[in-house]
Amino acid sequence: MTNAVPLTEIWRGPMAESLHRGHAVICDDTGAIVEAWGDPKATVLPRSSAKMIQALPLVETGAADARGLNSEHLALACASHNGAAIHTDRVRAWLGDLNLQDGDFRCGAHMPKDKAARHALIRADEKPCQVHNNCSGKHAGFLTLTQHMGWGPEYVEPTHPMQRACLEAFEEMTGETSPCFGIDGCSAPNFATSMHGMARAMASFAAAREGRNARETAAVRLWQAMVAHPELVAGEKRACTELMRACKEPVALKTGAEAFFIAIIPGRRLGLAVKIEDGATRAAECTIAALLVRLGVLDADHPATRRFMNAPITNWRGIETGTIKPANGLL
Amino acid sequence: MTNAVPLTEIWRGPMAESLHRGHAVICDDTGAIVEAWGDPKATVLPRSSAKMIQALPLVETGAADARGLNSEHLALACASHNGAAIHTDRVRAWLGDLNLQDGDFRCGAHMPKDKAARHALIRADEKPCQVHNNCSGKHAGFLTLTQHMGWGPEYVEPTHPMQRACLEAFEEMTGETSPCFGIDGCSAPNFATSMHGMARAMASFAAAREGRNARETAAVRLWQAMVAHPELVAGEKRACTELMRACKEPVALKTGAEAFFIAIIPGRRLGLAVKIEDGATRAAECTIAALLVRLGVLDADHPATRRFMNAPITNWRGIETGTIKPANGLL
Repeated sequence: MTNAVPLTEIWRGPMAESLHRGHAVICDDTGAIVEAWGDPKATVLPRSSAKMIQALPLVETGAADARGLNSEHLALACASHNGAAIHTDRVRAWLGDLNLQDGDFRCGAHMPKDKAARHALIRADEKPCQVHNNCSGKHAGFLTLTQHMGWGPEYVEPTHPMQRACLEAFEEMTGETSPCFGIDGCSAPNFATSMHGMARAMASFAAAREGRNARETAAVRLWQAMVAHPELVAGEKRACTELMRACKEPVALKTGAEAFFIAIIPGRRLGLAVKIEDGATRAAECTIAALLVRLGVLDADHPATRRFMNAPITNWRGIETGTIKPANGLL
Repeated sequence: MTNAVPLTEIWRGPMAESLHRGHAVICDDTGAIVEAWGDPKATVLPRSSAKMIQALPLVETGAADARGLNSEHLALACASHNGAAIHTDRVRAWLGDLNLQDGDFRCGAHMPKDKAARHALIRADEKPCQVHNNCSGKHAGFLTLTQHMGWGPEYVEPTHPMQRACLEAFEEMTGETSPCFGIDGCSAPNFATSMHGMARAMASFAAAREGRNARETAAVRLWQAMVAHPELVAGEKRACTELMRACKEPVALKTGAEAFFIAIIPGRRLGLAVKIEDGATRAAECTIAALLVRLGVLDADHPATRRFMNAPITNWRGIETGTIKPANGLL
């Protein structure tokens, strides 16, 4: 982590108050690095930025088709959603289609990020369910494949065939042997790779062709589902959703905890990976926006862009006190 | 900011997932640096860690005594409180004593951090008032001195005598001319200084003697008020409150936005300042706890210490997935 470079600055009045360092890699469809900041060899946990890789087995085994999943299901399988009604209604229905219940999830429960949903729970004095977990779509995907294959119920155990399938897809897409894993917030193993490996995996998504083989067909269906349903991948006002909508061409975007962010740009056959070393989401969002502007797929002055890059910081009286901006050399 | 050094690591499973760099300075009562990490010359905004400096004019002018303020008022003047009932009840009463109303504040309103207070507002479908602002105690202090002196109502304007008095106290305590200021979250100017300057100011608090002069008497009354009422300075489960309670001798602790933290250790005549360059509170809390352990005023295995230093990270099912720990060389 020691070679991280400045990627995002937080200004207050006339001075830089805080600074975020990190790593960023842009990879092409040969797996070669086009451009990099920081250390492409840094070992990282991509967290939820790996969700579309974790969804590959669901699609390429044929389970998704056998169970009648559509592009909304696939977008939710790749999502870290807000737990708004548009998310939880769909995941609940999906679970019902499987004849399963909330207790079959292994993701744990947490309060939804969506304000309306959260306040409704507080007003009703109700606790959140596992369906509210931002990863419940991924877990519904895990449950679908697990049921389809007749595997056992403890699908987040690292030795469970569901997670072995994820690891296999992960190593094939990154082109690297994963050195280790951590347990994610949602209890699934999260496999480590290098920054280069993660950008290479995203470039493989970008370069995939429908019909060439089961893997590539699955990859195309997944990024297309994300691009078709940006509101399901995160939610209103969230960077993934807002920036996917703002891009001038199809781009799949996905955040991950501890300030990971990826982009899949099929039109350029490019993959991007960003990791802020300190784990600050605000900096991952600013950095990915800046790199999308740099690559010409996002306008710097689009209102959505300006919510994350060169965004004003305002205080409790609405006074603009500073700005969050990309470090020199990013744009 | 470029000379920041690793201070806190975030581990997940077998690897360091994130890293926080920053600056830390320990100063003695001569203003000399005892120990430092990173760059003592780094220019910083101490944010709410400067509150006890901003409260000096209130006490040393005699306004606090003339208006009958007790140690609870003084602790609240130095607080970034949770907006729990114990805080808002007292600030509301203080405002009433001044015959002023919530609209006389210039701090702005935000939802209280305290869960019970926040949920009560949501259930009642009420918006927060300015008294809920974590800085409302500081602003009640500003209003007290402003009223006592017959100054105008716009007490957060940088040219207002209230803020000029703060700047004068700030420069005298830090021993430096402040190069600039930013506007804080609560709309008051926040003056910049060096890391060394801020640690020197805290050492001046630590070395102050009651009765020597108005400044030193005010300094002693303020840190004593903080130590006497740790629950008023922040709130239950917060680092300032929990670590002040856990220290083996009187230590005044105060967090600031963007990962500032200070300590005043009167028994050792030492002052500490910590700034995490990326603004992450979790790292400022871990770092200040580690430095207090290093100085022997806090036990590493105290339950309160373990909530912030070497603290387990758990996921939504309560599984321990990692830990937050001080970087090598801090302990």
